[in-house]
Parts: sequence; C-alpha cells; structure tokens
Amino acid sequence: MNTLTHLNAKGEARMVDVSEKQTTQRTATATASVEMHASTLDMIIQGGHPKGDVLATARIAGIMAAKRTPELIPLCHPLMLSKVEVDLEADAQLPGVRIRATCKLAGQTGVEMEALTAASVAALTVYDMCKAVDKRMVISNTYVEEKTGGKSGDWSFDN
Amino acid sequence: MNTLTHLNAKGEARMVDVSEKQTTQRTATATASVEMHASTLDMIIQGGHPKGDVLATARIAGIMAAKRTPELIPLCHPLMLSKVEVDLEADAQLPGVRIRATCKLAGQTGVEMEALTAASVAALTVYDMCKAVDKRMVISNTYVEEKTGGKSGDWSFDN
Amino acid sequence: MNTLTHLNAKGEARMVDVSEKQTTQRTATATASVEMHASTLDMIIQGGHPKGDVLATARIAGIMAAKRTPELIPLCHPLMLSKVEVDLEADAQLPGVRIRATCKLAGQTGVEMEALTAASVAALTVYDMCKAVDKRMVISNTYVEEKTGGKSGDWSFDN
Amino acid sequence: MNTLTHLNAKGEARMVDVSEKQTTQRTATATASVEMHASTLDMIIQGGHPKGDVLATARIAGIMAAKRTPELIPLCHPLMLSKVEVDLEADAQLPGVRIRATCKLAGQTGVEMEALTAASVAALTVYDMCKAVDKRMVISNTYVEEKTGGKSGDWSFDN
Amino acid sequence: MNTLTHLNAKGEARMVDVSEKQTTQRTATATASVEMHASTLDMIIQGGHPKGDVLATARIAGIMAAKRTPELIPLCHPLMLSKVEVDLEADAQLPGVRIRATCKLAGQTGVEMEALTAASVAALTVYDMCKAVDKRMVISNTYVEEKTGGKSGDWSFDN
Amino acid sequence: MNTLTHLNAKGEARMVDVSEKQTTQRTATATASVEMHASTLDMIIQGGHPKGDVLATARIAGIMAAKRTPELIPLCHPLMLSKVEVDLEADAQLPGVRIRATCKLAGQTGVEMEALTAASVAALTVYDMCKAVDKRMVISNTYVEEKTGGKSGDWSFDN
Repeated sequence: MNTLTHLNAKGEARMVDVSEKQTTQRTATATASVEMHASTLDMIIQGGHPKGDVLATARIAGIMAAKRTPELIPLCHPLMLSKVEVDLEADAQLPGVRIRATCKLAGQTGVEMEALTAASVAALTVYDMCKAVDKRMVISNTYVEEKTGGKSGDWSFDN
Repeated sequence: MNTLTHLNAKGEARMVDVSEKQTTQRTATATASVEMHASTLDMIIQGGHPKGDVLATARIAGIMAAKRTPELIPLCHPLMLSKVEVDLEADAQLPGVRIRATCKLAGQTGVEMEALTAASVAALTVYDMCKAVDKRMVISNTYVEEKTGGKSGDWSFDN
Repeated sequence: MNTLTHLNAKGEARMVDVSEKQTTQRTATATASVEMHASTLDMIIQGGHPKGDVLATARIAGIMAAKRTPELIPLCHPLMLSKVEVDLEADAQLPGVRIRATCKLAGQTGVEMEALTAASVAALTVYDMCKAVDKRMVISNTYVEEKTGGKSGDWSFDN
Repeated sequence: MNTLTHLNAKGEARMVDVSEKQTTQRTATATASVEMHASTLDMIIQGGHPKGDVLATARIAGIMAAKRTPELIPLCHPLMLSKVEVDLEADAQLPGVRIRATCKLAGQTGVEMEALTAASVAALTVYDMCKAVDKRMVISNTYVEEKTGGKSGDWSFDN
Repeated sequence: MNTLTHLNAKGEARMVDVSEKQTTQRTATATASVEMHASTLDMIIQGGHPKGDVLATARIAGIMAAKRTPELIPLCHPLMLSKVEVDLEADAQLPGVRIRATCKLAGQTGVEMEALTAASVAALTVYDMCKAVDKRMVISNTYVEEKTGGKSGDWSFDN
Repeated sequence: MNTLTHLNAKGEARMVDVSEKQTTQRTATATASVEMHASTLDMIIQGGHPKGDVLATARIAGIMAAKRTPELIPLCHPLMLSKVEVDLEADAQLPGVRIRATCKLAGQTGVEMEALTAASVAALTVYDMCKAVDKRMVISNTYVEEKTGGKSGDWSFDN
C-alpha cells in the first residue's frame, strides 16, 4: 500500500470504509517506557506497597483508555474489544517503568491504536502520580511490538 | 517534596486536596516526536496538500484531548483551560513530526498533564493516519519542556 | 467457578478474554429502590404532573447510563445493547420509588452490569431531583433480579 | 408504521428492541447548511489557506460526533460505524457552507441519526469558528437526503 | 473584529487565549425548529400523553448536550454553566416543534455554542423519536436569538 | 424549601440557576455497601494480594466517576472538584465491602451527587469483579452521611 488511506483524493480526512474487510481474530501489543530518576522508581517499588497503587492505577487507566480510543483518535473505527491487558514492570536498568498493552478482537480493523492508546495513557498516569517528586521523566519508545490477524497477517517490529 | 502525594498514608490512590492552593496563571508546554521513514514524512508534506490534513487532524485531536485529560488520567483534577495550542512540524532530520502543545489556565493545579495528553494524542493521531504505509513508527521524547506559575514558579527541562 | 476471573495469576486487574465465548441472546433485569419520606413521594406523584418529569428524567438517565457502562466500570467489555427499558413506579408502601431496568443483546458477555448501572443511575437521578426537599433518602436493594442466556443459562435471584 | 415506536404502551420512552431485525448493509446521507454573510464566506475561502482549517476542523468534528451519537441521542442504539465521510463545500450562491455527511454500517438499525449528528456538529463547528466576525449565521435545512438498506429499502428525500 | 480568531497567523486552528478577558455574567438563547407532517405533530401532542415523553426526552437530551459542548466543538473552552433551560413547543402553524434553549454562566467566554448545541440536540432527539412515522422532517432556523454580557454587551438577532 | 426546584412551574425539568448562590467551601460524604457471601469476601481479602486489586480498581473507578457526575445525572451542574477520596473496607460482620466517598469543592452547589456517584460506581465495580463467584450480591444503604458548607450549613444523616 502506498497511499495514506485516511485521506481521500482531495487530501481530506475521512473514516475509511471497512465494510468489505474480513472479520478475523486480531491482536496487537504495544509498548511504552517512562524513564525516571532511580529514586523515583524506588518510591514506586518500596514504601510498604510492593506492586502498590501507582502501577495498579496506571493499569486501570490504560485498560479504560483502550476502550475510548475511537473518541480520542478522530479516524479510528468504534470496535468491540474482547480483551485488554496492560502490564507494568519496574526496570532498575532503565531506570523506570516498562509498559506492555495487548488488545484483542474479532473485527474488520486492527487494534494497534487501542494498544498504543492503552500504553500511552498508562505511561501518562505513571507520570502524573510521580511528577511531584520528579519533573524530568520522559515517556519514550512507544510503538507497536507485534500484531496478528488481518490481511497482512502476523508481524513483529523486530523482524 | 519527597513523597508521592497521590497516595495516602496507606498507599492508596486519591485525588489530592488542592482547595488551599493559590489560584495563579499557569502554563505548561510539552513535546513529543513521531519518528518515521523519510518516505512517510514525504507523503505527509507532499501530494498536493501542503499543510494538509494529517497535521490538521492531529492538531484538532490534540486540542480536544487536552480538554479530556481528567477523564483519562484517574487522579487529575477537572480544570478550566483558558488556552490550548498544538504545533506540528515536519522535521526532515528526524525524520518525522515534532509536536509541541501549550496549555494555560488560572487555577490551583498545573497543566502539565493537559499539555502531555495533547502532545501524546496528537502523536497517536499522526501514527494512525500513517500506519498503513509505515508500521515501524516510534513515538519518543514525550516530556514537559517548560512550565510557569504555581508555587514552584517558572521551570524548564533544560536548566 | 471459584476464582475471581478479573484478576490474573498475579492478582492484577485485566479485561478478560471473551473471544472464545459463544454469541447468544442475553438479557438481565436489575432492580433498585429509593426510599424517601411519604411527603416527598407525594410531590413526585401529585402537583398536576402525574407520571411527571421526575420519573421521565430518571428513566432517560438510566437508559443513557446503560450505554456508558464500559466507560464507568473499568473491566466491562464494550457491547452493543439491542434494547434498554427502565421502569419506575411509585410505591406508597415503601414509601419511595421502585426501579427495574432490563437490558438485552446478542453477545459474548452478560448484561448484568448494564442493567445494574441503568437502575443505579436512575435511582441517583431521583435522588438528585428530590434532595432539596428530603435529605434522608436511601438507595437500597440494588441487585440482579434475573438473567437469561449465556453458558449458565436462565437464573433468578429468588430461586 | 403508524405509532411512535420509541414510546411503550404507557407513553414512556424506551430503547426499542432491535434484536429480531436483520443485519444488512445500511447507509444514510444527511445534509445541513450554514448561511452567512458573503464576506464571512470569503474569509473562510481566502486568506492564504484555500481548503484551510475552518473546513478541515468542521470535517473532523463531524466525523468524531457521528461516533458519539448514542451518547447524545437518548434512545439511539450503540453501533459500529464502518465508514463516516463529511464533505463541506463553500457555496457563493447561498452564501455559505453546504455540508453532506454519509455513514455506513452492517447492522440492525439505520444510520440516519449518525449522519444527521455529523452534519449538525460540523455546522455548529463552522458557526463557532466564524461567530466572531458574523453573529447572524443561520443553520438550516438539516435533513436526511437518502438512505439504503434495512426493511424499508432505498429511499431518497426527493422521490 | 475582522479576522477569524480561531486561526493563528498560519491559518491553523487553536483554542484562543481567554485568560485576559473579564469574567462577567453571560447568557445566550438559541432557537431551532423541527418541521414535520401535521399528523406527526398530532401523535406527539395526543395519544393520552399530553406533555408526553417526546418533548420530555428531547428536553433532557438538550440539557445534557449543553454540558458536553466542549467535547463536541473542537475549539470551545470548557466552562461551568450555572443554568440551562430548554423549552419545546408544539406549533400547529409550522407544523412542527419549536425549541428555545437558554444557557447562563459567569465566565470569560460566551455561551452561544452551548445554547446552539442544546437546541440542535433537542431537535435531533425529536427527529429520532418521530422518524419511524415521518421520514421528511427538516430541522431549520437554528440560530442565536439573543445574548447578554461580555465585551460586546447585549445583542439580539432582530435588531 | 417545599417544592422540587428541578421542575419549573409547568413541571418540566431544567438545570436550576445557581448564579446568585454564594461560593463556599463544600464537602459531602456518601456511603454504600456491597453485601456478599462470606467466601466471596475472603477471596477479595486473601489470595496473596492483601489490599489487592478488587479494592484498588473500585477505588479508581469511584474517583473517576465522581468527575463524570454531570454527564450522568441530567440536571447536575458541571463543577470543579478540588478533592475526591474513596475508601473501601472489608467488613466480616456484613459480610461485604463498605464504601465511603468524600468530595470537596469551592463552588455554588453542593457535592452530594458527586459523592453518591463515586460510592455507587465503586460498589458496581466490586460487584462486577466478584459476580463470577457470587450472583447474589446486593448493593445497599447508599446515602449521604454528612455534608458541610452551603446555605444550609453542616448536616449529618444521624442528627
């Protein structure tokens, strides 16, 4: 494919017609990272609440955001997600939090945007909850890691 | 400040009380980038629609998302933005699109999350509109560049 | 079933995968009551507007809330309700308003949460419209009365 | 059909049961006009930005509004639009902007309300962006131009 | 004023800065009509439910829509409405339903868009509830009738 | 006060004018309970995740719902909550989960509905997460426990 399908012949935005596309099982996994000061990460991990509320809150925010993707991204189709899972992991090497979001549905369009939106909003939520102690966090490396189903079949970023 | 103010003494999430904070003019500017293949950037820039619809659509999506920040980020306060501006710029060096979002209000809490949400959703929208031609885009370097107002006063990432 | 399916092996929240569940016709009926002072109920019933606007407003609010269930309840799947009906009835015995909400769809998950959300928001709306005259109302007995369809088949609270 | 199907036997609003209706391909096209002073229309057309941001912004607003129809119109069913297209055209004769919105889905209910909502919100957005220079604009002639699919088959306003 | 303030110097959309505008009491009243077949209007008026549910439902839909204006109209500021009133009146002369919506707030921007959105969504709701019996309804004459407050002071369409 | 202020002289719903009311600090605390089988409560408490995800998820859902109250309850004014706190406590006596939600703002209307909505949606979320193991849960005793501020001053349910 070598044109921007979200634009019509006049270069105007539109929500493309997917009514002729096949309904198949589709999944997509997206990732994002929140880089932070090591002491900020320690606060998330420690303090009597291992796997405590920062990560739990961000997980919920990500799951809820996935469902609202078509309200946020103008040309996304509404769709009926059958599964959303958001994992957050403290990574002392980064240092920071690594996020992976997976969405699934049987439908006519892929779920990359839903997975990306879940990962992005989970990252923003981590940022929000830690910004009082760390103003220099950076959200980075937000991308689609892999997807399955649809006309183009299985695909992963690294191959 | 050395605690996560979004958690109470038991480590549980809450929306912190800002009723005693002073109402001041506040601004925040956040940035994000969408790195892409040079040929993808060319499609955005060229094709008969300079300043065409990809950037216009992402700009609108970012502005609208700023207003919905408290619906997306669980512990953000509702607030009355007095200005939102989202700039998108094609950068052949990256190559990709650079985004800067600025929010402003007279209020009791800062507007960093609104600026970050605007920049993130604008970036996701660029991704959505170009993903049919480029599966390997990466959204990177999402952070708060500078902010003014509030107790901590003026601040910029680079100082 | 003897585990909380909304939690994964690590005890973290997720939106469970329903993609392998069968699509069947499903209904659920939920109930709720708003207990109030007898004179408050009289104001709703009388005053020239029998079946007047308090009940009409609450009915609409309940119907609209059913459609927003997946936005409110973090782990609910988005779904395509094919019918929503909300009945409100003045009950002089209570005294108060009895609410019954019925939802229906052909889908892979049940509609109990939609029916419960419709009944709850209808009850909150009655409360809102009468709170200026009665501060001691209580919303009580919100539960699923019966449901049909799905793997577990027909079920009613009383059997 | 000679009754208002959105009301039950007691005259109360409800979301009608569509579960027995057939799933067919359905489309609807709605139109609306924004009548304005000729000089206002000139500002939209000229100023260095032909096909500029007023029309682009209204187009995006209309597309996004179509997806939110069931949140706005109390008794509309949630549905999975497979296509939304909104066209805006400057008409020097009117003078003003003519809007046409087309929605499409495979489903059990028609998409007239989605097309009308898209056209209406696009018109309101044009109004919003021009009201500083023209307080006397009028939005007129909002109606369904044609529809296809469903039990009643193809239909157009003019026949 | 002779420029489109919603566009910056480059013709790009933005949410304009209102932080320097004065906070004053502001009101706006907007109107819209739904023209229909006389027999459709009769069904709304008669049938045992005078002041029945079509008008009650549309009234609620209009009030709720006023509150969501900044979510629908991309460049509208969020604002804190202090009053919304929506009146619907059967007009045998039209024949059809006449709608008037009034919004009020103490704020830095006018409430024309909120009043127009309330009137438009009330009109769309009337349309939705009657479309099964009348496919040829037309929504017409949607405009701002009068407004008070703000820099430009009191104003009415007819003067 | 002895009339339903949400209805005008004709008995029609409206959002009442609060523009003349004084801006004061206001709080409200609402409560709700989810009664369940003792073994269901055990699953929430035990299983390796004390302070685990059921309560954390319900807490977040309640906080987020408080912010959306004016979207759900037709005649509620939009307002700028300055604090939301939702506490959930396992009560072996009930047996079940007790919920208390407190909201705060400086404004012209009370925050009872926000506190009630937070408590109700937190209760619905507990229900949703446990319904696979317990179909006979009942949400009960949802009411306003106490409020401060406003014309009527401090008030508690028990006095």
